[in-house]
Amino acid sequence: MDLHILSPKGFSAAGVKAGVKASGKTDVGLLVADDAVSAAAVFTTNRVYAAPVEIGRQHIRGGKLKAIVLNSGNANACTGQQGERDALAMCVQTANLLGCESNEVLPSSTGIIGHMLPMDKVRTGIAAAQAVLGTSAEHADAFTQAILTTDTRKKVAGARVKIAGQTVTIAGICKGAGMIGPHMTLAGPPRAKQATMLAYLTTDAGATPAYLRSVLAASADVSFNAVTIDGHMSTNDTAVLLASGASNGMIKSALDKSRFEAAVAEVCKSLAQQIAADGEGATKVFTVTVKNAATKAAAVAMAKSIAGSPLVKCAIHGSDPNWGRIVSAAGYAEVPFDPAKATLKLAGVTVYKSGRPATFNPGALSKKMASIIGQDQLVAELDCRAGSHTHTIWTCDFSKEYVTINADYHT
Amino acid sequence: MDLHILSPKGFSAAGVKAGVKASGKTDVGLLVADDAVSAAAVFTTNRVYAAPVEIGRQHIRGGKLKAIVLNSGNANACTGQQGERDALAMCVQTANLLGCESNEVLPSSTGIIGHMLPMDKVRTGIAAAQAVLGTSAEHADAFTQAILTTDTRKKVAGARVKIAGQTVTIAGICKGAGMIGPHMTLAGPPRAKQATMLAYLTTDAGATPAYLRSVLAASADVSFNAVTIDGHMSTNDTAVLLASGASNGMIKSALDKSRFEAAVAEVCKSLAQQIAADGEGATKVFTVTVKNAATKAAAVAMAKSIAGSPLVKCAIHGSDPNWGRIVSAAGYAEVPFDPAKATLKLAGVTVYKSGRPATFNPGALSKKMASIIGQDQLVAELDCRAGSHTHTIWTCDFSKEYVTINADYHT
Repeated sequence: MDLHILSPKGFSAAGVKAGVKASGKTDVGLLVADDAVSAAAVFTTNRVYAAPVEIGRQHIRGGKLKAIVLNSGNANACTGQQGERDALAMCVQTANLLGCESNEVLPSSTGIIGHMLPMDKVRTGIAAAQAVLGTSAEHADAFTQAILTTDTRKKVAGARVKIAGQTVTIAGICKGAGMIGPHMTLAGPPRAKQATMLAYLTTDAGATPAYLRSVLAASADVSFNAVTIDGHMSTNDTAVLLASGASNGMIKSALDKSRFEAAVAEVCKSLAQQIAADGEGATKVFTVTVKNAATKAAAVAMAKSIAGSPLVKCAIHGSDPNWGRIVSAAGYAEVPFDPAKATLKLAGVTVYKSGRPATFNPGALSKKMASIIGQDQLVAELDCRAGSHTHTIWTCDFSKEYVTINADYHT
Repeated sequence: MDLHILSPKGFSAAGVKAGVKASGKTDVGLLVADDAVSAAAVFTTNRVYAAPVEIGRQHIRGGKLKAIVLNSGNANACTGQQGERDALAMCVQTANLLGCESNEVLPSSTGIIGHMLPMDKVRTGIAAAQAVLGTSAEHADAFTQAILTTDTRKKVAGARVKIAGQTVTIAGICKGAGMIGPHMTLAGPPRAKQATMLAYLTTDAGATPAYLRSVLAASADVSFNAVTIDGHMSTNDTAVLLASGASNGMIKSALDKSRFEAAVAEVCKSLAQQIAADGEGATKVFTVTVKNAATKAAAVAMAKSIAGSPLVKCAIHGSDPNWGRIVSAAGYAEVPFDPAKATLKLAGVTVYKSGRPATFNPGALSKKMASIIGQDQLVAELDCRAGSHTHTIWTCDFSKEYVTINADYHT
């Protein structure tokens, strides 16, 4: 059975067409907990962060949320104090409709930067969404549609685990196809991305806000913060985890925790991989694993450097086993790296070994690379033989279609 | 009168077709000083550096060079100990032909990574080049051709200044169109680029090696190290400055120094801008200036972040005044930046002011952006209003042609 954002008990949702998007597609959404629930959120570390991120950071401090209100089609970023008033107004309206406090509502926006929100349309949309809240798969789908921008498809993942003798459900949705290079942390301010990465996770497990914060931050680091399309960190990246407790599965024991943490991480990883597969113009997922690095930071920096190189990503697009681009990208990550010790495998084939070219059949490898498409992962594995630290980044190839999409996106 | 690499007195050069390049174009070159002369060099800071960089670092230590020997079509990078033996063999052969020491010869290579140099062809080429050395503009041109790879045209610049009552000439050539994101320093090791940036400057001024080192390092930072095509630092980046002293203009006074330094910097900047204009697939030069930043490091980091964003470069390609991408790229540079204070001008038009959108005519600005092509510079100027530090980076737009060039480049 396919899980969706309303599979965990205790939530309702809606998505409506409010006219914020020029396309006329679904663009305002509400996700509502039956009661205010334990919640955690991580936000972009970009020093240029959108108004809803500012308001969201304030509202998550209490550790309790009743609702998420969002729009796509406009990022409400670089909009000054008016932007903050608008983001807050979305929360106030939602709170009034739901009968909760405005600081129990977290706002999100995604779309073009630098345009004031069309608040008439947003207000009408929020009221319309509240009027049609429901718990069906169709309601979940409408909310999921409401966050999409240049995405070609929705991204959904879920898991079920036993917690305290109860079956608990974890589900997540996300969006993102361009301006994807998140680095989200619990606190501001700010390090790191316009199409933006947004993710919302629900669970009917029971947990404290503090525990949810640690679980979300750890999961984000190996999932959303480990995916890049173009390395451009958005002003709006946000991931939120809501725990209703409605399953009666209260997380307490070490076993409960390990199960829950593994399940949340798996849901987040699946969502991150779906982002890579739906990257603007992408034809394949390119997975970069740096292993046996001297430090965790070195593994992360080298993997990001490789996954961020346009030259590497063009070679992947052309199914060209041009491994020199990969090794040299690791070399400029500004971390310790001894190429004479390193070995590189591309699609399972050793192409570079201990500082020297390995013998392989370029034509056969190119054919193998070309056969890996869609959601399948083309893996580059760089073994540094310098330590014990490993990091994996998911990205995609770089195609002419990416240029078309982003040279013609309108201001 | 157009200056060329042999305009300064005291040098001869040659370029020949040795068959290293599959295209059959000129691919082996020699630049020879009449006697061993004062010299300085900066090299890539990539930890994966090519064999000729390793040998070049050793040979420049003495501060004197008789010759530069180079090939294009093969980078001699990731080639292990055999690669180092080959780079050294190029120097030994050249030294034997010229009657100097092998450590007075600096080698360079550029081209594909991870293939052993075809030494039979290289040896035949070096001997053929030595046999046809000369001082004419045609000889200068042949040497200039010998360093090109995916470049569509040669890059040459020159200047004349009065030093100690004498007219001295400074001339430079360079190559680079992709895998361009140099960060070169005097010493290794290594921070961070396959088509590679190579630059050679000659002057008939007289100077000590120590002085040349300081001049070249300072000039490189505001020129070659300030140009990026794709942010991918090469394994082979090298810039060399040779001073023959043949003009009798010995640099001694403060006035001499300021004139010489300004002239070298201008030659290097012109070469760097020519690289940006000839970037793979480029239709225009995109100049990013960050001014009034709190620190120099902040200005450099923000300018690099903006110039490195594929989203920004696609917008520039599409003549889309999508300034949100520019401001947000500054925001993830991981340096202090207060967007509420900042102002952004694009092609001279204020598009963002003090944290808010400025009023401008997007259609008119888009037309203006579209009219700036070729070597003309489309300028983005971000005024941080936080201090007094400024940095400029030259790059280019990002086109489908870049993808075509780099998805189909053969391994």
